[in-house]
Amino acid sequence: MRYYEDYEVGTVDLHGSCEVTREEIIEFASRYDPQDFHLDDEAAAKGPFGKLTASGWMTAGLTMRLMVESWKKTGFVGKGGAGMDELRWTRPVYPGDVLSVRQTLLSKRRSASRPEIGFVRVFIETLDAESKVVMSMISNAMIGTRDPGGTD
Amino acid sequence: MRYYEDYEVGTVDLHGSCEVTREEIIEFASRYDPQDFHLDDEAAAKGPFGKLTASGWMTAGLTMRLMVESWKKTGFVGKGGAGMDELRWTRPVYPGDVLSVRQTLLSKRRSASRPEIGFVRVFIETLDAESKVVMSMISNAMIGTRDPGGTD
Repeated sequence: MRYYEDYEVGTVDLHGSCEVTREEIIEFASRYDPQDFHLDDEAAAKGPFGKLTASGWMTAGLTMRLMVESWKKTGFVGKGGAGMDELRWTRPVYPGDVLSVRQTLLSKRRSASRPEIGFVRVFIETLDAESKVVMSMISNAMIGTRDPGGTD
Repeated sequence: MRYYEDYEVGTVDLHGSCEVTREEIIEFASRYDPQDFHLDDEAAAKGPFGKLTASGWMTAGLTMRLMVESWKKTGFVGKGGAGMDELRWTRPVYPGDVLSVRQTLLSKRRSASRPEIGFVRVFIETLDAESKVVMSMISNAMIGTRDPGGTD
């Protein structure tokens, strides 16, 4: 199990990977982001990137999936999230891209009122196969403590 | 068509609405956020909200869809987004909830180097049927200008 005490500022975890398919891009976009350049090759050719790209919200969803699957394997004791800051889509995501996730602990502090949890800020980067960052965000989350009486 | 010039600080647009179904919650979660409390009623009963809730990323996706559908109707001249700040999930979303979106212009400025666009910051709130905020975020986006020589 991975507890609050197992993370230090600078601790890096890697999660992944998954391949982005044309079918999934179109299916996701038709449901959640029906802009032409996420739906159709011909329209995308005239769009901002010259070819079909994934919705940024799909990239966020795949990022979440890779993290959740990884947490299940490692026994991460997540206690929920308060939200995300500075969500940025830095490069387009195309069919065939293979994505993975790198998370880096930015800061941590114990809850004063709830000793069973700690607050963390985590920098989350979604990477393509060449380790270029396609999306990044900062998560404000809570992690269970192993020792509610600890001081670190 | 809705251009940069059609927005003032404080301009409010409403987009919506759609109903959240149990089937969609489970389908989305199985693909993008496979945590027990988004997947299964029995597990959710023991989870943080006591019943099945939608993934926050699904709420974000539905919010995007409501905006895109509305933009298509009004002829909004969007020129892309740079990302989101202060994404917060403020209330759980349950099966049967009906969501809509309220956007409020926070600030605007013309691009100095690209007169065909303006930069805007937009506060986006996702509301339930009682107008309670279930999610909010600030979008940093670009809108086409009607008059590239304008000064407002």
